[in-house]
Amino acid sequence: MKCKITFIGSGNIATNLAYAFDKAGHTIHQVVSTHESHAKELASKFGAYYGDSSSELYKDADFIVIAVSDEAYPQALTLVNAKCRAIVCHTSGSVSMNVLSSYPGDFGVIYPLQSLRKEEVKNVMQVPFFIEGNNANTLNKIKELADSISNKVSEVTSEQREKYHLAAVFANNFTNLMYSIAAEYLEKEGLNFDNLLPIIAETATRLKDDKPQAWQTGPAKRGDKVVIDKHIGMLDDPALKIIYKQLSEYITST
Amino acid sequence: MKCKITFIGSGNIATNLAYAFDKAGHTIHQVVSTHESHAKELASKFGAYYGDSSSELYKDADFIVIAVSDEAYPQALTLVNAKCRAIVCHTSGSVSMNVLSSYPGDFGVIYPLQSLRKEEVKNVMQVPFFIEGNNANTLNKIKELADSISNKVSEVTSEQREKYHLAAVFANNFTNLMYSIAAEYLEKEGLNFDNLLPIIAETATRLKDDKPQAWQTGPAKRGDKVVIDKHIGMLDDPALKIIYKQLSEYITST
Repeated sequence: MKCKITFIGSGNIATNLAYAFDKAGHTIHQVVSTHESHAKELASKFGAYYGDSSSELYKDADFIVIAVSDEAYPQALTLVNAKCRAIVCHTSGSVSMNVLSSYPGDFGVIYPLQSLRKEEVKNVMQVPFFIEGNNANTLNKIKELADSISNKVSEVTSEQREKYHLAAVFANNFTNLMYSIAAEYLEKEGLNFDNLLPIIAETATRLKDDKPQAWQTGPAKRGDKVVIDKHIGMLDDPALKIIYKQLSEYITST
Repeated sequence: MKCKITFIGSGNIATNLAYAFDKAGHTIHQVVSTHESHAKELASKFGAYYGDSSSELYKDADFIVIAVSDEAYPQALTLVNAKCRAIVCHTSGSVSMNVLSSYPGDFGVIYPLQSLRKEEVKNVMQVPFFIEGNNANTLNKIKELADSISNKVSEVTSEQREKYHLAAVFANNFTNLMYSIAAEYLEKEGLNFDNLLPIIAETATRLKDDKPQAWQTGPAKRGDKVVIDKHIGMLDDPALKIIYKQLSEYITST
């Protein structure tokens, strides 16, 4: 099944999905965005129509993919209406499928669990996609579409998707914060963050061999209060002292 | 220069260094450990002598590498004495070089900034090694030894090494804790942690392209209080609620 796909949104997710759908033989039909210039830029890659957030959507799309920030859903939804006939999908981790229920046609979710950015379009074949549909027939169609771009498609409820999203905040956002704290500290001390890249890569990639719980090491894990206190003393920022202390206590207590 | 190298300790670091030195053409001369069976196991890989913590060290070693836990240094140091003539090196991130100053001969540090384990011996050629010596001549000899197994050797003072070690606690120990929290949460909810492996790998490997500060995304970064409060509500463990809240506040404040 080759589909005509319209995007509302032209950011990181829209861009990566548009490239993936195009590569899989689908047609990128129309791109609309609050920033018409962004829509034009993405649409031009595929010879698609483009417009701003006052544009009318062409009626012959098979799918309308909404890829906007969570706050922008109400405005995006004003564009879709009974005349559309397309299956409307959103792409968010933390928004229930039912945010789309005002749409009189079929709808669902196609959510890629990956940190994507438009500056570096990635092959998404190994990216987990979590899908949902408002009925079995719609779900099948969304599955067929998702299967055309990823080998890791699974059906997940809105509630489960939100749980994955919460877990991803720890695994991605808070992990990146740990990197940032290390980088800023070393920079301030005139030392070179690049020296940490091998241990960062090792910490991440060895998870394929065992659960993270089995890999925990360091002063807190071995209950080395001397080193813990020394480290807390070496940090200037009171907020960082608290973070170091609390994460260490959590490790020690588990 | 090919050297005879004795190890005090037979754990993760000793094992990885022994394999690396052997591969570089040096001789693993003797391995002693509080657990003689562990010493024997490692020594047997290289036809080396072995013994327990009451053993006499052979006098013809060029280097004695102490690779024991920080607490075990006093006992390890009772084994080295004026008769040794070797350069004595320790391998720890958080211990000053001067812990070795009771040794009447030359001494220094050879510290690999990587999380190593004996169950999976790694090629250490890309591992940063931080070295230190009690005088210029000793430092040169330690540098020559370290250069034979790594392309990333740099001279670093004890104080700087401790700072790298503190940064590595964030980049490795606390990062792994974030993975563990995500894994335990998903496990409890009957969901599959493997779905996070692609985003974890992406989060780590993209650091070669830009600083972590440039990569920060998520609800806290965009000040999305609705999602933050929802996530805190979804966590049962009070300690995790506090950790989520504090890390989010730190992201929002920076």
